Amino acid sequence: MKILLVFAHPEPRSLNGALRDIAVAELQNQGHEVRVSDLYADRWKSEVDRADFPSLPPDARFKPAAASGEAFAADALTGDVRAEQGKLLWADVLILQFPLWWYGMPAILKGWVDRVYAYGFAYGVGEHSDRHWGDRFGEGTLAGKRAMLLVTTGGWETHYSARGINGPIDDLLFPINHGILYYPGYDVLPPFVAYRVDRLDQAAFEPIAKRLRERMRTLATTSPIPYRRQNGGDYLIPNLQLRPGLEDFGASGFALHLNRAGTAG
Amino acid sequence: MKILLVFAHPEPRSLNGALRDIAVAELQNQGHEVRVSDLYADRWKSEVDRADFPSLPPDARFKPAAASGEAFAADALTGDVRAEQGKLLWADVLILQFPLWWYGMPAILKGWVDRVYAYGFAYGVGEHSDRHWGDRFGEGTLAGKRAMLLVTTGGWETHYSARGINGPIDDLLFPINHGILYYPGYDVLPPFVAYRVDRLDQAAFEPIAKRLRERMRTLATTSPIPYRRQNGGDYLIPNLQLRPGLEDFGASGFALHLNRAGTAG
Repeated sequence: MKILLVFAHPEPRSLNGALRDIAVAELQNQGHEVRVSDLYADRWKSEVDRADFPSLPPDARFKPAAASGEAFAADALTGDVRAEQGKLLWADVLILQFPLWWYGMPAILKGWVDRVYAYGFAYGVGEHSDRHWGDRFGEGTLAGKRAMLLVTTGGWETHYSARGINGPIDDLLFPINHGILYYPGYDVLPPFVAYRVDRLDQAAFEPIAKRLRERMRTLATTSPIPYRRQNGGDYLIPNLQLRPGLEDFGASGFALHLNRAGTAG
Repeated sequence: MKILLVFAHPEPRSLNGALRDIAVAELQNQGHEVRVSDLYADRWKSEVDRADFPSLPPDARFKPAAASGEAFAADALTGDVRAEQGKLLWADVLILQFPLWWYGMPAILKGWVDRVYAYGFAYGVGEHSDRHWGDRFGEGTLAGKRAMLLVTTGGWETHYSARGINGPIDDLLFPINHGILYYPGYDVLPPFVAYRVDRLDQAAFEPIAKRLRERMRTLATTSPIPYRRQNGGDYLIPNLQLRPGLEDFGASGFALHLNRAGTAG
């Protein structure tokens, strides 16, 4: 397979750097082709602004979605964005690797999403009608590919557990897994999370490295998170609310959008 | 009161720009002192990197949290970051205004958080013991102040409702409201959200503007979201899990951390 790893840590000599090297080596050992987008090394531009759309007239009001759609359609996006889109189309599997900062992605990675996910590429794709609300949430440009997160946290695993003060890790990552990866079509694998990494010694590192190698060996066979397809019948259109009675017993919030029975979607 | 509004939209002639002007005018009409941090206009630097810590030796491994703590303690953070920290200390109320992009903040605003929220300022504050896990989640540098989000979305309100495909807006904003605002001590007011803003005509704009003016008039009196204080007895320390039986009937996920009865915390 072809794998793209997007790396968002400023220090190569970090735990994140070590985990990246382990992931890449294991994937190459398995015969996969691997490319890495190292956002800090590449000095990735984080901010969506007018400079992203050189064809926009200087006095025109800047509407980010409209400008993005027009530039994508005219093949006029900037070179850095087009290069990343090319890598996404090339790769069978996307891995986003980052330290969890303030319960989300570092700004540089959010900026990669904000800029690379152009209108017409990652959203605004497909028919909009009373039966089909765009190709998204299970359909789209990147359908048929797989994606997963590789995340480190300073906090303890219990702090991110079902009753932990930070909120459950799966809920904290839902806006990324569902809203950024599932949205343009990826099948989303459960995240790899390493907790309490700030004071990690070699003895604690080894089991994490072993677990990561195992995940890299099973990318093709791991079952994706069973999110529900938007246009598969589970949602009313256009209000996009889950039809009554479909949810798991007692489920609410983000968990409504899982179909653990695997019979629909 | 003193109000700081942090504005994160690239186009002043946008709906966000119009809402900002309405908010500022209404606050000034009420006699408040208002400052605006316009991140795009100020060309805010989004990425946490070595350049943020000029005193870090060039060959030292860059550990973001440690570097942040050392620079904060030595008053050696960069001028842009110190200026924003000064504004946070000055303001009685913080408003973060942004368009919801990919279910979160634009990168430039995430970068404001990542850089301004230094170790020793917004985290790593206070005693760490078996009874008190740092001054955070209800305590901290910014305790006694209020904060709220002012957010616009392209999607419909039903898409962000309890059963909506995007997930409930309160859950999508929890990592910001709880993880970024409540964490360093703010009392967090319910967010102001304007939906479906992409094709808004004047008739649809007026009720939104009216609702926003009303929220600006009631900043001091609106009840905060009743999050539970970390060190108030509701959580076991150090695992930071909510004690059994405290939650609202049937609550799970992020909602566990609300105390709607208002009797504890």
